[in-house]
Amino acid sequence: MTAEPPRLKHFGWGREGEEASPAERAAARARYAKLFGTDQFADLRPPPLAALRLPEARLRPPQALAAFCTDALYDRAAHTYGKSYPDTVRGLAGDYQDAPDLVAYPPSEEAVADLLAFAADRRAAVIPFGGGSSVVGGVTPVGLRARYPGVIALDLSRLARVRRIDPVSRAAEIEAGIFGPALEAALKPSGLTLRHFPQSFAYSTLGGWIATRSGGHFATLFTHIDEMVESLRLITPAGPVETRRLPASGAGPQPERLFIGSEGILGVITRAFLRLHPRPRFRAGGAVLFPDFFAAARAVRDLLQAGLYPANCRILDEAEAAHTGAGDGRTAVMVLGFESADHPVEAAMARALECCAAHGGRLEPDSGPRAGAAERWRTAFIRMPYLREHTVGWGVIADTFETAITWDRFEAFHQQVMEATERAIRTVTGRPGLVSCRFTHAYPDGPAPYYSFHALGAGEPHRLLEQWAAIKGAASEALLAAGGTITHHHAVGRDHRPWYDRERPPLFAQALAAAKRTLDPAGLLNPGVLIDPLPA
Amino acid sequence: MTAEPPRLKHFGWGREGEEASPAERAAARARYAKLFGTDQFADLRPPPLAALRLPEARLRPPQALAAFCTDALYDRAAHTYGKSYPDTVRGLAGDYQDAPDLVAYPPSEEAVADLLAFAADRRAAVIPFGGGSSVVGGVTPVGLRARYPGVIALDLSRLARVRRIDPVSRAAEIEAGIFGPALEAALKPSGLTLRHFPQSFAYSTLGGWIATRSGGHFATLFTHIDEMVESLRLITPAGPVETRRLPASGAGPQPERLFIGSEGILGVITRAFLRLHPRPRFRAGGAVLFPDFFAAARAVRDLLQAGLYPANCRILDEAEAAHTGAGDGRTAVMVLGFESADHPVEAAMARALECCAAHGGRLEPDSGPRAGAAERWRTAFIRMPYLREHTVGWGVIADTFETAITWDRFEAFHQQVMEATERAIRTVTGRPGLVSCRFTHAYPDGPAPYYSFHALGAGEPHRLLEQWAAIKGAASEALLAAGGTITHHHAVGRDHRPWYDRERPPLFAQALAAAKRTLDPAGLLNPGVLIDPLPA
Repeated sequence: MTAEPPRLKHFGWGREGEEASPAERAAARARYAKLFGTDQFADLRPPPLAALRLPEARLRPPQALAAFCTDALYDRAAHTYGKSYPDTVRGLAGDYQDAPDLVAYPPSEEAVADLLAFAADRRAAVIPFGGGSSVVGGVTPVGLRARYPGVIALDLSRLARVRRIDPVSRAAEIEAGIFGPALEAALKPSGLTLRHFPQSFAYSTLGGWIATRSGGHFATLFTHIDEMVESLRLITPAGPVETRRLPASGAGPQPERLFIGSEGILGVITRAFLRLHPRPRFRAGGAVLFPDFFAAARAVRDLLQAGLYPANCRILDEAEAAHTGAGDGRTAVMVLGFESADHPVEAAMARALECCAAHGGRLEPDSGPRAGAAERWRTAFIRMPYLREHTVGWGVIADTFETAITWDRFEAFHQQVMEATERAIRTVTGRPGLVSCRFTHAYPDGPAPYYSFHALGAGEPHRLLEQWAAIKGAASEALLAAGGTITHHHAVGRDHRPWYDRERPPLFAQALAAAKRTLDPAGLLNPGVLIDPLPA
Repeated sequence: MTAEPPRLKHFGWGREGEEASPAERAAARARYAKLFGTDQFADLRPPPLAALRLPEARLRPPQALAAFCTDALYDRAAHTYGKSYPDTVRGLAGDYQDAPDLVAYPPSEEAVADLLAFAADRRAAVIPFGGGSSVVGGVTPVGLRARYPGVIALDLSRLARVRRIDPVSRAAEIEAGIFGPALEAALKPSGLTLRHFPQSFAYSTLGGWIATRSGGHFATLFTHIDEMVESLRLITPAGPVETRRLPASGAGPQPERLFIGSEGILGVITRAFLRLHPRPRFRAGGAVLFPDFFAAARAVRDLLQAGLYPANCRILDEAEAAHTGAGDGRTAVMVLGFESADHPVEAAMARALECCAAHGGRLEPDSGPRAGAAERWRTAFIRMPYLREHTVGWGVIADTFETAITWDRFEAFHQQVMEATERAIRTVTGRPGLVSCRFTHAYPDGPAPYYSFHALGAGEPHRLLEQWAAIKGAASEALLAAGGTITHHHAVGRDHRPWYDRERPPLFAQALAAAKRTLDPAGLLNPGVLIDPLPA
């Protein structure tokens, strides 16, 4: 039995005691000073927890629920925001006007059902909450206090056991509130692993991954959590839903698929059977350097269309590679890796390198799966989210957005998105910023490009928010106009609604709303996410 | 331009002029004589088309629709039944009381919409019809004449073009009414292929495959058509639905998944973008003989869990191998094949054979992907459906059912299903029959077992139907009770409803019904399939 980890910070990334080191902050500051041509940054700092002023807590749970509910300051503050850019700006400004009235930590499915019944009785909105790592406003109850007489954050963290491991089928029944590290630790003795490592791995939960169609470790083939879900169980206001545990079925529309990606609006995912992998024993990989990003992209396409399915196949454009220390700014980098628990993967790696060579890609000297550019990029990837709570305070507008597009449209798409985002940064902030791109996942018919942007805003929080919204909006418009999706694995939440509403077929939205009315007749579950809230 | 193929037979498998040869019929008859210990068989023959008596055609389309609608005898008769066992028995008996009033062959999406508007105006039920190869009553309008003042078969066969091939993303936009051979012929010049070859390939359509979650060529990885659908377009009574063409997305529940497997109850699929494969150039494979079926099954499990994904990996139990001429009745057979358009597959084949050897499997001498037992089984597989219109006339009750189950439960599951089916045959027909099993598809977490049974019934059609229903019911009960699914790729239709209704979560059924009310408010589309018909 390991010690309980410290609680999550009420503001910022990670658990209490974790943050970017002074050296990491200095390096980030130096990068920004060089990028923006100034070392004059704002110095906004978040108020300490004790200084926060939260609106009145309006809900008092009955005796039976009181044992797992609280309206303590830490709990309400820590459940007010996710980890989006606006969340960070507003948290930094000490704006907690949307704080939930109550935070519930149900210890059982029965308690979840009781809590939903209580919410229905009080007409209170309920926000299912896993790790709170949403970067799209998925757990942020914006404006709900005015519409609902109560707002409850339903935190799943006490439903966190691996209930059963089936080594024969290589699957496990796992409760939804478990965090990534605890999940892998519980699986470890069996030799099995879920191998789903989103950037938020340490601070996000299985239920959150399923609710948001999280994208993980595998760059190809098993990209989203969707493919790993063998069955699932939810508690909805109308009762429980449990799908049958099966390797596959053809019986009607797949029931799991209605709930995978439902972002908390249809029910509370409480557990699931997940398909597992054996731990890899054979590995081959390294960093491949390309003359430019499109050459690297064409190599990715060839690789995938050759029927090679590397576990890792990320490419970084010149700017992304330079910004993360993985490259020198003159080459694009592919982080390539094959793995297997069963057989050597050198032949696949060799063929993949041939595909790369055909587009001018050459293996970095002394390269390996955990060395060189690949490892430098990996470290930057893991550490990056810790920086935001500092960089926002400097007045930096830094965010990411991601999408997917078929190969035939990719190059024109990419140019349009880059130009629209760069133009918006110049227009909005008055000076150029940095926009960079990588591929997080790839498919035989197209890539999933992931964009990062950095701009220097005016320092006041409300100005930062406005400016962020203008840049984000311009980028999102470009994504949609050029044929992409508003999200490949960050989900929709509240922030992507305007573009999601245009991307999805209108009649599908009506069908989804009808399904919601069946399962959540009072419209209490995560209102505003995916579809409009019903009138309170 | 090739000549139009002959029209589909109004009764039986295939097109006019196609049927089992006298030699094939004699061989089947000899097998049954040996199995049942008698050469006294019934001799029921179907009435000729001209002798059929159909109920009055009650619908007269307006001028604008008349050009693509008909109530001619052939068309109504050929759209009364699919290819299920009950369909065949009833067709053989000349029972056409459920014949549709009208058959529509809309030449455009606009015509589909016009037809749906006409149906709504007349409160007529509409059965979307592809190739009519359903073996589960999916296109059989049982009892609908009494509930609806009109019944229309909406035949998609005039929407049958490959509209656009995208060689860069390796995808194509294809109309739903195209049959398998025409689809592959249209793709061939591009060097690409869908490689989706269900047993019904020659007589089924893309739209039918998508509506029923058809299972195809690939035994692993890309098993169902689901994975190949990049986007789709439907015409619903409430209007068109078109999803965005994307390699992947994480924006809410995947819209396509509501419609894939919707079996015509939500809308008429008119076209889709499909992911394609290059034609394979490298192949390795053959037949592997095993001491018994469970040994072969364990080898399949090891193979899949090793991360090998053979294109073909079917196993036949001793009886199935013997019945199809692929084995001698003492060994189980695995038909194993790897293929690639890009790279040699010998290493994968060698590793697969090691997995087989660990369970006593040895490669058949002189084996190859298109030789020996593998090829004998393949021929039997393709030819088998042509026999049914004859064997039913002999009084034979022969049918198949298929499922999926996780590996941990497979062996006990298989024994229960086999015993229940064998027992039902003995009880119902008074003598033993034959039940055999193969795997059509397999997954790391479980196989998709496919059962065939043969029993000798009493010869009168109504007795055959009763006896079939008793055997089918017992087998279906066993599937459900032992934890399987009622169908892996045959779909639900009308015949599987009692078990599907218990397999799916009740609240999912309610959500699906709510979605249907949104898209098909009058409840006219394929009533009785998947969910109950609305009151007429």
